Amino acid sequence: MSVEPFDVVDLIHTKRDRGTLSTEQISWLVDAYTRGYVADEQMAAMAMAIFLNGMGRDEVRDLTLAMIASGETLSFDGLSKPTTDKHSTGGVGDKITLPLAPLVASFGVAVPQLSGRGLGHTGGTLDKLESIPGWRAKLTNDEFYAQLESIGAVVCAAGSGLAPADGKLYALRDITGTVESIPLIASSIMSKKIAEGTASLVLDVKFGSGAFMKDPERSRELAETMVRLGTDAGVNTVALLTNMNVPLGLAIGNANEVRESVEVLAGGGPADVVELTVALAREMLALAGQPDADVEAALKDGRAMDTWNAMIRAQDGDPDAALAEPKESHTVTAEADGILSTQEALPFGIAAWRLGAGRARKEDPVHHAAGIDLHAKPGDPVTKGQPLFTLHTDEPARFERALEALEGAYSIADTPPTLTPLIAARIA
Amino acid sequence: MSVEPFDVVDLIHTKRDRGTLSTEQISWLVDAYTRGYVADEQMAAMAMAIFLNGMGRDEVRDLTLAMIASGETLSFDGLSKPTTDKHSTGGVGDKITLPLAPLVASFGVAVPQLSGRGLGHTGGTLDKLESIPGWRAKLTNDEFYAQLESIGAVVCAAGSGLAPADGKLYALRDITGTVESIPLIASSIMSKKIAEGTASLVLDVKFGSGAFMKDPERSRELAETMVRLGTDAGVNTVALLTNMNVPLGLAIGNANEVRESVEVLAGGGPADVVELTVALAREMLALAGQPDADVEAALKDGRAMDTWNAMIRAQDGDPDAALAEPKESHTVTAEADGILSTQEALPFGIAAWRLGAGRARKEDPVHHAAGIDLHAKPGDPVTKGQPLFTLHTDEPARFERALEALEGAYSIADTPPTLTPLIAARIA
Repeated sequence: MSVEPFDVVDLIHTKRDRGTLSTEQISWLVDAYTRGYVADEQMAAMAMAIFLNGMGRDEVRDLTLAMIASGETLSFDGLSKPTTDKHSTGGVGDKITLPLAPLVASFGVAVPQLSGRGLGHTGGTLDKLESIPGWRAKLTNDEFYAQLESIGAVVCAAGSGLAPADGKLYALRDITGTVESIPLIASSIMSKKIAEGTASLVLDVKFGSGAFMKDPERSRELAETMVRLGTDAGVNTVALLTNMNVPLGLAIGNANEVRESVEVLAGGGPADVVELTVALAREMLALAGQPDADVEAALKDGRAMDTWNAMIRAQDGDPDAALAEPKESHTVTAEADGILSTQEALPFGIAAWRLGAGRARKEDPVHHAAGIDLHAKPGDPVTKGQPLFTLHTDEPARFERALEALEGAYSIADTPPTLTPLIAARIA
Repeated sequence: MSVEPFDVVDLIHTKRDRGTLSTEQISWLVDAYTRGYVADEQMAAMAMAIFLNGMGRDEVRDLTLAMIASGETLSFDGLSKPTTDKHSTGGVGDKITLPLAPLVASFGVAVPQLSGRGLGHTGGTLDKLESIPGWRAKLTNDEFYAQLESIGAVVCAAGSGLAPADGKLYALRDITGTVESIPLIASSIMSKKIAEGTASLVLDVKFGSGAFMKDPERSRELAETMVRLGTDAGVNTVALLTNMNVPLGLAIGNANEVRESVEVLAGGGPADVVELTVALAREMLALAGQPDADVEAALKDGRAMDTWNAMIRAQDGDPDAALAEPKESHTVTAEADGILSTQEALPFGIAAWRLGAGRARKEDPVHHAAGIDLHAKPGDPVTKGQPLFTLHTDEPARFERALEALEGAYSIADTPPTLTPLIAARIA
């Protein structure tokens, strides 16, 4: 018989009965779960108890540290430049990483973006970049460090070596209805970011219909928890709370989001995408020691675009190649004159997903050309018959269910809507 | 792909967020869990959500009915006599089934007692009866019905065909810290009792240190929930709330509990065992149509003993055979003159278990002669050096840990303790 220091049922009872788990208990629990001594059903009961009864500040820190300790950690100490990283909690049309990483890197800062693929209605950064012919998400460790040193910007797939306990726990939470828990989300995100070894981190924490945390107050709590975790672990961390009630930009999909990102890198692009890219770049550069960097200038004068081109080429992509075009498109027009009043992020995200831009299961491929182009944003005046948005797909049978998702998702009114700021708060 | 009417994650979300599950949802959930479509980790998360957020009256009823529907149901319609059943939530020294079943059966009523084995500090009725040489717990269906018709009293092992969903769910709850939940306990007990087909049922719901529900108010809630479930399902159900702060009777173990039961059937025995046996017998006989039965007379005039002898013989046991004697005994004496003030059920149960009377794992055997004989009960005057209790075991190395369990478990005082009634309430 193995000699284990704790009984997992006792630990479940403690959390179930609103008690506090000790550092030693949490460390053992995560280790015992990773090596399979604690069973999935026991961790599922624990996750639900944490979901419903919460965790104290020390418990969340201990959980994060235990997940980091479950795997390897990276270090950027060998680089000649400072590192800074960004993480978004995910939203509809959120392609910000694409212009942001080369923009910040163009100031001589290393931006390691270990990214994921999309699941459900929020897209994945790697899926978007893979619509560029030749581009590959997988890098060896040597390629990763060499590109960080030479170009600064790297967006690539995270290996499974960082915080493997988090990977296992996240998969469990996904099928046991225990995803939307602040202690569990915060420790999941921050364990990977801290293990990655970045010196500083800017978090884009979304709230609203297209975010997985709808309520601004809960998003603020999540942001505060993550900033504290980062700071306690020696990572300079700042969070922006941003509005995800409306899709970000005019493109929702994969290839069309790459096109929109390139517009921003060329000094154009939709105002909201530019605003958020610039705000996040300023935060990252300030953390990396350049509080006065002229971010807009790097977008206007081609420096950010040069870094983008270098970044794509370094990963075997052709930044000049034509992107995939959809086989079928369907445009929806305004039924009346007025002002576009609402444009709900969640249904637009679901519609793009149903058109083929996202995947329902991990194994599914995404369709690079599928998605939605918006032709108007809330507050814009529209006239009857004017195009409001265009759906793109490779499989026209998908239009029907996409249009179903969009019923009631937008409206035209006589009076202008009350528009709320994109960036609601800054938490440091 | 199979077409399932519900998504289990949606159902977990509903319960997690304090919503109500519909009849159709609960029916599907239990069925899908039984056939393995819903995974253990999903049911574990659901069980914890039920534990923490509770279930409404309709949900508990639906859960009970769904567990009944997962297996076979018995029927006693073919018998020439009425049936009545008793269930105890379990305690220390609780041998009441042994005198009770033949006592009630001696009035021409059928008493089918499908029983279990002990696990942990509460003993199992089958374990106790197996200390009688030759007695066997397993009966075929034909033997079971024939013995009910001819003798009336049957105590035997429950087959796995009744409410198999409950068996699976109970095993899961045991390892996921979700046992002590009123909706889950009530549906677990009542699904088996209703599936068994009894026309009436008396519940002995324990509270106190030796019961698995310590708090009297929670025990009352459990009793009320079970009485409602039985009544709604057409089973006439009554519950007695009884005190399990002190061991029941003077014997805790297996063979010694059989001896004490035979004393009661011979018209003697400890007052508390007689009181509870008589009270439960009156309730059962009243439900079976004999509210005026003279229960005490059947204990005094040998009718109950005759039925006991017939019941034991029908299952190949020899009621006259000598019972196992322990290899070693150790008596603890009073350290001072005074009045025995406390005698905590839980530590005495744990001590008997450690002596070999109970099992730690399902596969373990029990030692028939192991256990504890009490020589005094709270309220009894004692003199220094007088025996207080005697420990019995076949393996003397067990004395040490048994005595450890008993530290602080009893006390002698100058003034008499406040004694509380054995039967605290009747719920119908």
